[in-house]
Amino acid sequence: MTKEPPISFLKRAHGAEIRVRLKNGNEIEGKLLVYDEMMNLVLQSAKEINPETKEVLRNMGTLFIRGNNVLFITLEP
Amino acid sequence: MTKEPPISFLKRAHGAEIRVRLKNGNEIEGKLLVYDEMMNLVLQSAKEINPETKEVLRNMGTLFIRGNNVLFITLEP
Amino acid sequence: MTKEPPISFLKRAHGAEIRVRLKNGNEIEGKLLVYDEMMNLVLQSAKEINPETKEVLRNMGTLFIRGNNVLFITLEP
Amino acid sequence: MTKEPPISFLKRAHGAEIRVRLKNGNEIEGKLLVYDEMMNLVLQSAKEINPETKEVLRNMGTLFIRGNNVLFITLEP
Amino acid sequence: MTKEPPISFLKRAHGAEIRVRLKNGNEIEGKLLVYDEMMNLVLQSAKEINPETKEVLRNMGTLFIRGNNVLFITLEP
Amino acid sequence: MTKEPPISFLKRAHGAEIRVRLKNGNEIEGKLLVYDEMMNLVLQSAKEINPETKEVLRNMGTLFIRGNNVLFITLEP
Amino acid sequence: MTKEPPISFLKRAHGAEIRVRLKNGNEIEGKLLVYDEMMNLVLQSAKEINPETKEVLRNMGTLFIRGNNVLFITLEP
Repeated sequence: MTKEPPISFLKRAHGAEIRVRLKNGNEIEGKLLVYDEMMNLVLQSAKEINPETKEVLRNMGTLFIRGNNVLFITLEP
Repeated sequence: MTKEPPISFLKRAHGAEIRVRLKNGNEIEGKLLVYDEMMNLVLQSAKEINPETKEVLRNMGTLFIRGNNVLFITLEP
Repeated sequence: MTKEPPISFLKRAHGAEIRVRLKNGNEIEGKLLVYDEMMNLVLQSAKEINPETKEVLRNMGTLFIRGNNVLFITLEP
Repeated sequence: MTKEPPISFLKRAHGAEIRVRLKNGNEIEGKLLVYDEMMNLVLQSAKEINPETKEVLRNMGTLFIRGNNVLFITLEP
Repeated sequence: MTKEPPISFLKRAHGAEIRVRLKNGNEIEGKLLVYDEMMNLVLQSAKEINPETKEVLRNMGTLFIRGNNVLFITLEP
Repeated sequence: MTKEPPISFLKRAHGAEIRVRLKNGNEIEGKLLVYDEMMNLVLQSAKEINPETKEVLRNMGTLFIRGNNVLFITLEP
Repeated sequence: MTKEPPISFLKRAHGAEIRVRLKNGNEIEGKLLVYDEMMNLVLQSAKEINPETKEVLRNMGTLFIRGNNVLFITLEP
């Protein structure tokens, strides 16, 4: 069992494509540029996607997400 | 009566399959990889499941959950 | 009038059967194993019950509840 | 004008019958046993009552209320 | 322009009749007895009033309001 | 680019007419008397206005707003 | 991978046109004048826009946004 804190998940995801589910139900995917311990995130080439079908709803460019809105984060398959 | 804090429940669940009920009603199961005192969690082979029937709704891979969204956690039977 | 803080209620309830009403309306009963000052709780042989009829809706085994979801707690009669 | 802090209202209500309105609209009455500065409360012989008619809906015995759910508190007439 | 903090508004309102609008839409009027920097308030001869018509809905006696529920406060005309 | 913090916007608005949109959708206008870093505000000659038409719904006199309810603030045109 | 914190996104956006999505669904665009680590923002020539069509709904002049209402921020294309 590793001793790393959960935030290390984001460290390993640095530069990778992630999917972020927000508390309001929105789902965003993009390349993780930077993060902090509050889960504030900056994503590059961010796209809002349909949570069910994963189709792209709109392109958002570089996106800053305020961490308190994050529900969960996955690595894109 | 033990003196352990409640977080020790997660310590004992390390590496085990757990089910996490989120405040929004979603239920997630997976293997607990890491956690912290805020209840931030990283689950391996995470799956969203139907809270009633427990059938798998979708596979999510490695999943980071922001702790403030956690309602309760059980060990999988 | 005692000088004990309210948390001492949980101290006296240690090892006893309690009922926990959550903010979302769920009601859980079980044996109180551990708690902390945030009201994080671990219950043994936890059961979700119908808040009106008190009938058991499902067995949950050992259950961790994140304290900020707690509305109120009573001792089981 | 007194210099007492508002919490002193609870100090004077120690051992008296109070009514607590919760944020979710529930109304509880009972004898105030203990409290703290977070408004965590322990009530003895607590009863859930109808906020309009004040009729007793159910008896709850000794009740612990997590302070962040409190909307307001009155002394019972 | 005065350098007083906003809380000084409550200082000047000490002993005067105020109206408190709560986040849930309730409106309360009464004589301000005590307050603190969290906006916890104790009102004397408190009355719940209709926010539109200002008619008295019920008398509440001495009332303690937990500050985080306060939306805004006015002086009674 | 100035180094002033955002709160300096309120400093410059001191004594001027402002419009405050609250989280619950209410819109208030009045002369800004005092503020603090929590966005607690005291407005003089405050009026609740219709967010769409800006017509005055009611006069509120001197008004204290608890800062955590503030959504955004504009200067009146 | 840069070591900059996410707030540095706002530093680079200083003086540029940004779009801010609020938690309540409102979308605002304007020139970023100042910000702080809470995401409190001051925008110049702010406009409320339709989140879907991006058409301007109304002009707001200089706008102060309380940071806890921010969902996400993008650079205007």
